[in-house]
Amino acid sequence: MQRVGIVGYRGYSGAELVHLLHRHPHIEPVLMDHREDAGGTPAIRRATPPTRIPCTGEAVHQQALALVFLATPPDVSMELASVILASGARVVDLSGAFRLRTPENYTAWYKEPHTQPELLAEAVYGLPEFCRHLIPAARLVSNPGCYPTAANLALRPLLEAGVIDRASGIVCDAKSGVSGAGRKPSLKTSFCEVTGNFSAYSILHHRHVPEVLQISGLAEHEFSFTAQLLPLDRGILETIYFRAPSLSAAEDLLAIYERQYAAEPFVRLFNPPHMPDLRGVARTNFCDIGVAFDAPTKRAVIVSAIDNLVKGAAGQAIQNMNLMLGYPETEGLL
Amino acid sequence: MQRVGIVGYRGYSGAELVHLLHRHPHIEPVLMDHREDAGGTPAIRRATPPTRIPCTGEAVHQQALALVFLATPPDVSMELASVILASGARVVDLSGAFRLRTPENYTAWYKEPHTQPELLAEAVYGLPEFCRHLIPAARLVSNPGCYPTAANLALRPLLEAGVIDRASGIVCDAKSGVSGAGRKPSLKTSFCEVTGNFSAYSILHHRHVPEVLQISGLAEHEFSFTAQLLPLDRGILETIYFRAPSLSAAEDLLAIYERQYAAEPFVRLFNPPHMPDLRGVARTNFCDIGVAFDAPTKRAVIVSAIDNLVKGAAGQAIQNMNLMLGYPETEGLL
Amino acid sequence: MQRVGIVGYRGYSGAELVHLLHRHPHIEPVLMDHREDAGGTPAIRRATPPTRIPCTGEAVHQQALALVFLATPPDVSMELASVILASGARVVDLSGAFRLRTPENYTAWYKEPHTQPELLAEAVYGLPEFCRHLIPAARLVSNPGCYPTAANLALRPLLEAGVIDRASGIVCDAKSGVSGAGRKPSLKTSFCEVTGNFSAYSILHHRHVPEVLQISGLAEHEFSFTAQLLPLDRGILETIYFRAPSLSAAEDLLAIYERQYAAEPFVRLFNPPHMPDLRGVARTNFCDIGVAFDAPTKRAVIVSAIDNLVKGAAGQAIQNMNLMLGYPETEGLL
Amino acid sequence: MQRVGIVGYRGYSGAELVHLLHRHPHIEPVLMDHREDAGGTPAIRRATPPTRIPCTGEAVHQQALALVFLATPPDVSMELASVILASGARVVDLSGAFRLRTPENYTAWYKEPHTQPELLAEAVYGLPEFCRHLIPAARLVSNPGCYPTAANLALRPLLEAGVIDRASGIVCDAKSGVSGAGRKPSLKTSFCEVTGNFSAYSILHHRHVPEVLQISGLAEHEFSFTAQLLPLDRGILETIYFRAPSLSAAEDLLAIYERQYAAEPFVRLFNPPHMPDLRGVARTNFCDIGVAFDAPTKRAVIVSAIDNLVKGAAGQAIQNMNLMLGYPETEGLL
Repeated sequence: MQRVGIVGYRGYSGAELVHLLHRHPHIEPVLMDHREDAGGTPAIRRATPPTRIPCTGEAVHQQALALVFLATPPDVSMELASVILASGARVVDLSGAFRLRTPENYTAWYKEPHTQPELLAEAVYGLPEFCRHLIPAARLVSNPGCYPTAANLALRPLLEAGVIDRASGIVCDAKSGVSGAGRKPSLKTSFCEVTGNFSAYSILHHRHVPEVLQISGLAEHEFSFTAQLLPLDRGILETIYFRAPSLSAAEDLLAIYERQYAAEPFVRLFNPPHMPDLRGVARTNFCDIGVAFDAPTKRAVIVSAIDNLVKGAAGQAIQNMNLMLGYPETEGLL
Repeated sequence: MQRVGIVGYRGYSGAELVHLLHRHPHIEPVLMDHREDAGGTPAIRRATPPTRIPCTGEAVHQQALALVFLATPPDVSMELASVILASGARVVDLSGAFRLRTPENYTAWYKEPHTQPELLAEAVYGLPEFCRHLIPAARLVSNPGCYPTAANLALRPLLEAGVIDRASGIVCDAKSGVSGAGRKPSLKTSFCEVTGNFSAYSILHHRHVPEVLQISGLAEHEFSFTAQLLPLDRGILETIYFRAPSLSAAEDLLAIYERQYAAEPFVRLFNPPHMPDLRGVARTNFCDIGVAFDAPTKRAVIVSAIDNLVKGAAGQAIQNMNLMLGYPETEGLL
Repeated sequence: MQRVGIVGYRGYSGAELVHLLHRHPHIEPVLMDHREDAGGTPAIRRATPPTRIPCTGEAVHQQALALVFLATPPDVSMELASVILASGARVVDLSGAFRLRTPENYTAWYKEPHTQPELLAEAVYGLPEFCRHLIPAARLVSNPGCYPTAANLALRPLLEAGVIDRASGIVCDAKSGVSGAGRKPSLKTSFCEVTGNFSAYSILHHRHVPEVLQISGLAEHEFSFTAQLLPLDRGILETIYFRAPSLSAAEDLLAIYERQYAAEPFVRLFNPPHMPDLRGVARTNFCDIGVAFDAPTKRAVIVSAIDNLVKGAAGQAIQNMNLMLGYPETEGLL
Repeated sequence: MQRVGIVGYRGYSGAELVHLLHRHPHIEPVLMDHREDAGGTPAIRRATPPTRIPCTGEAVHQQALALVFLATPPDVSMELASVILASGARVVDLSGAFRLRTPENYTAWYKEPHTQPELLAEAVYGLPEFCRHLIPAARLVSNPGCYPTAANLALRPLLEAGVIDRASGIVCDAKSGVSGAGRKPSLKTSFCEVTGNFSAYSILHHRHVPEVLQISGLAEHEFSFTAQLLPLDRGILETIYFRAPSLSAAEDLLAIYERQYAAEPFVRLFNPPHMPDLRGVARTNFCDIGVAFDAPTKRAVIVSAIDNLVKGAAGQAIQNMNLMLGYPETEGLL
C-alpha cells in the first residue's frame, strides 16, 4: 500500500478522487486539510474515516506520501505544487495552472500572472492516450481539462489522419453537467436557476479552448467552441461538426479511430443507431465516441461523451497516478 | 365569442392549446373526441369543463365552429383536414402533413404517400413573421415545426442580408425538451431513461431539416442540423454557428435583426453577457435571439430559444388563428 | 390603476409578485430598491421595464403607493413596515415577522427579539378562507407561511367539525420544492446537492409549526410535522394522517370540506382515484385537497397541495391585496 | 467461479443485478432470455458481453447454473421457479410471488390465484438482518419488497424492544424514485408527467403493507402507509412517526438500534443534525436509519433510506445469494 494525499477533498473532483481511490487495491488515500477544510467534516460516510493531515510539506514528508492530488483552484495549485514537490512527493494537479505551455498564454486566458514558470516548463500534460510515454517519469502532471479531454480524443486522430477540411472550420458544441462549475455555492448553480433550464456561456471564448488548440494543433479561427450548462449533475457531451471531403462513409472515420484506439482501455466507439449518451459514461472513466457521416455532402458529426468528474477529472488523474507509480493503468478504474 | 375546436387535446400541444385558449377573451375552446379520446377524461381541472363533441363534419357544422386545430399525427391530419374544411370551418394543422411544398418531398421525409395533394397545394405556411400577408385569407394554415421556427427566425434575416458565408456552412446544434416527442409512452421518453441523461438523435437527417431549407433558402449541404434530447419538459435552444466575413461586430448582426423584427411582438433580442435561455421563454410565445461574434476571425454564434409547446406549437397556432379570424395577433398570448 | 410597491423583488416570492401583478388589470407594480438591490438589474425581461424607486418613506409618499409588499426577511420587514405605514401605504408582509401572536412566541421560534410589538398586535393574519372579515380594514396584513397554508386549509374544517381523534395525534408529512428556501445561494440548495436527492430537515421543530397551532387550535403534542426537500423548484404537498372514529366513509370528510369551501374560489376537492399532485397546482393560486379513508380502521389521509410561491406566498398576498383595496378577490389570479 | 442466471435482465432490477455481479470475484452472470428478451439486445456495453442462454430447465442444467435470479413479474416467477428448481439450480425471486405466507393473502393483495402453494410454503423470506439463519439452506429465497425492507429494518427492533405506543398508531410516509415502477413504458412514468411533480398513490392500501405486517408483527390498523412518487430515478426514503412514552431521549432509540445492528454490515445509524438522505445510499446496499425525538411529548420520527434497486432489490438479492452459496455476505457489495 502506498499513501497518496488529496488537497481539495471537499470539492466535487476531490470527493470523486477519494471515492474512486477507496476501490484501488494498492493506494490508501489521505485527506489534506487546506485552509477552509480545517475544522469541517468531510462529506464522506465510512466505518473507518480516512486519515486527515494538515497540508504542509512536513506532513507530506512525515506521512511518506508518494503523490499528492491538487483538486484546487489554479492559484492554490501554483502555491502548493512547489511545496509538495520539495517534500518529496510527486504531484497530479487537476487545475488549469499547468496546462498551457507558456506563462503568457496562461495570463491571457486566466487573467493573472503565472507564479511558477519553471514548474510550468517541467509539467507534463496528462492525457495518457497521447502523452503516455512522458507520464511515468514526470514529477508534476497537469491533468487535462474536462472539455479538452472529450474534444482532443475525438479530434486529434482525425487531424493527424488529415481528413478534416480545416478551411471550412470545426464546430464543437459542448454541454456540461453542473458539477463542472465546482461546489462553491453561486446563483448560477442554484437548483432553481438550473432545473428546467439550459443556457450557453463563454461563447467562443472559454478558457479550455487554448488547451484544445495545443493538443490538436488547430488554430483558433479553425475551432468554434461553445460551452453550455445542462440540468444534470455530471457528464459532458460534445457534438463536433466538420467536413471530410476525402471520405466516403462513416466506416472511414471509425477505421481511423480503431487504428488509434485499438489498445486503449478507456475509449469506446459507436456508430448509429447506437451513439454515446451521458448515462453510458456516468461514473466510468470511458470516453465514448460515435460517428455519423453524410456521404453525398461529406459532412461529419462526432459525438464525444465523458463523465466530467471521472475521465474529465478524478478518473484520469488516477490513470496518471497509475502510470507514475507503476501500477496497471486501469487499476481501480474498471 | 367564437367557438373553435381542438382535435388531439390529450397530447401536449393540444392540452397547451386548451390551456392558452382559456385566456383568450373572444374564443371558446371545444374539445373534439377522435378515436382514443372517446370515453376518457381530459387531463384538465376546471369548474366548468370545456364542451366535448365528436370529431365529425356534422358536429363542426352544428357547433358552428369557426376554426379547428388539428394537434394530431400527420396521417390523421391529412384525413381530417378535408372533412373539416368541407363542413365550413377553417383549419390550423400542427402536424407535419402540410409543411413541405410537394408530395414528393413529404414522402421522402415522412416515409408515406401524401393523400391530399390539393390541400397541400393550398396550405399556407404559418410563420407569421415571414408569411403574415398570406395567413388572414387562408383556409388551411400549416403550423411550423418547433425546430424550424427557432432556426428560421434566427437565420432568414441574416441570409436575406447576405452576411453569412454559405460556402463554409452553417451548423445548427439543437436541443429540445421531452414534450417535443409527444405524450405517447415510450422507453425513450421514460423518466428513468431521460433524467440525468443527454443524447443526440436523427443526426444530420431530422425531418425538420427540409422545413428549414424551404424557408431559409439554404441547400442541404449548407446546413448541418442535429437534434438532441434535454432532461427537461419544455423548451428548444439552438446554437447556430457560421462565418460572417463582411461584418465587424456583434452590433452588425443585431442591427439586421432589429431592422427585421422592430415591429414583431414575439421576437426579443439579446447580446452578451445576456443571452437567451430556456427559463426566459418557458410558457411564453417569445423567440429570444442572442448574438455573439468574434471580430478577428469573423465567427458568429446565434442562440435562438423558444418554448416548443408555445411558439413552437400551440402559441404560434393561436397567433395564426388570431390572424385568420381578425383578432389582434397577440390576443391571449401576452 | 393603483400603484403598489414590492420590496425584495429579486427573491423568488418577490419576482413571482411582479410576474403575477403584471396580469392584474388595476395594479401597476413598482420595484423598490432596498440595499443590495440598488445598482443591480432585475431578472425581468420586458419591453417596458417596471418603474424602480428607492425603498424610502419619501418615495412611498411621492409615488402615492396604495400598498407595499414586503418580500423580505423578518428583520427587514420589522424595520420597514413602520416606515411604510407612516408614509401612508398599507402593507402585506410575506415574512414570518408578524405571523405569531406574541413577541415571546416570535422570539422562541425565530431566535431574535421582536422590535415592533405594537405592529404585531395590530397585524391581521391573511388567510382569507378563515380571516376574510378582518382583512379589508387592516393596515398591516401578515401573509401566511407556505406550509401552514396547506396544513390549515386541510385541518381546520375537520377540527371545527370535531371529527379528528386528537388524542392519537395528527401527522403532517410535508414536502417542499427548493424555491421555498429562498434565492440566496447556499450549498443546501445547490443543484448538485438537490438533484436526485430527497432529505428531511427541521424534524418536529420547524418554525412554521406554531403558525399551524395558532390557526388550527391544536396543541404541539397533537401535531407532528416534518419538512422535506423535493428535487423540484416549486410546490408543497402535505400528507396528513389521523383517525376519525365517528366517520364511516371518505364522503363524510368530503362533505365537511364542501360545506366549508363551497364558495371558496381557490380550494378544490378530490377523492381517489383522483388526488392532488404538484403539477395540478403549479403556477396557480389553488389549494387542492384530496381525501382517503379506510372505513374499517377509521384511518384518514388528507393530501393538501399548493404552489409555495403562489397560494403559499405571492398569490395569497395578492388575494389579500385585492381584499384590502376593494377589488374582486380573484382579480389577476385565475 | 460459479455461474448464476438472471431472468428479466432488461428490467431495472435485473440490469442492476448484472451490473453488480460483474464486480463479484466468484460469480459469472449469465443472461437468460425469456419471451420478449429473445432477439433484442441487452442495454449493456462491455468488451466481452455476458453469455446469453434461453430460459429453459435444460439450459439451466447444461450451464450448471448454481442459482437463478428471477427479476420478473409475480406470475412469471411462479411459472419459472419450479422449472428452475427442478433443473437443479436454486432461486432468488425478486417479485412478490413468494413473500406473503399464505395463498389467500397473496390472492387478496395481488388479485390473482397463487399457482405454487407448495413452493410458497417452502420459500424463505430473504431479509438477512432478521432471517439470516434460514437463508443458507434455502432452495427458494423470496427477496423482500423495497418499501418493506426500509420499514422493517426501522421498525422491528423498536417493536421487539416494546418502546412504541402501538395504540396511537404508526405512520409510515414513503417516497420512492421512479425505477421502483419498473421499466415498462407508461404515462405515469413518462418524463413529462414526473419531472417537477410529486404525487401519492395506493394510499393506505399498497400491496407492500402485508409484508411489513408479517415481519413487524403489527396489525393493519396500527400501521398507516402511503407510497409517493419522487421525481428522481432511484431511492426510497420513509419517514416514520410514532410515540415512545417510555423513552427520554433520541439516544434511547439509537441504543436499541446499536444493540440490534452492531454487527450488521449494511445498516448505518444517524441522528440530527446528520440524517439519512437519498444521495447517501444511492448505488449502495446500505440502509441508513436516523432518529429524532421530542422528549417532552414523547414523539419520535425515524428516517429510513435505501436505494430501491440495491438494498431494495438487486443488492439484497446478492446478499442472499452470498449466504446461499457460502460466500462472505458482503462480497461484491462494498
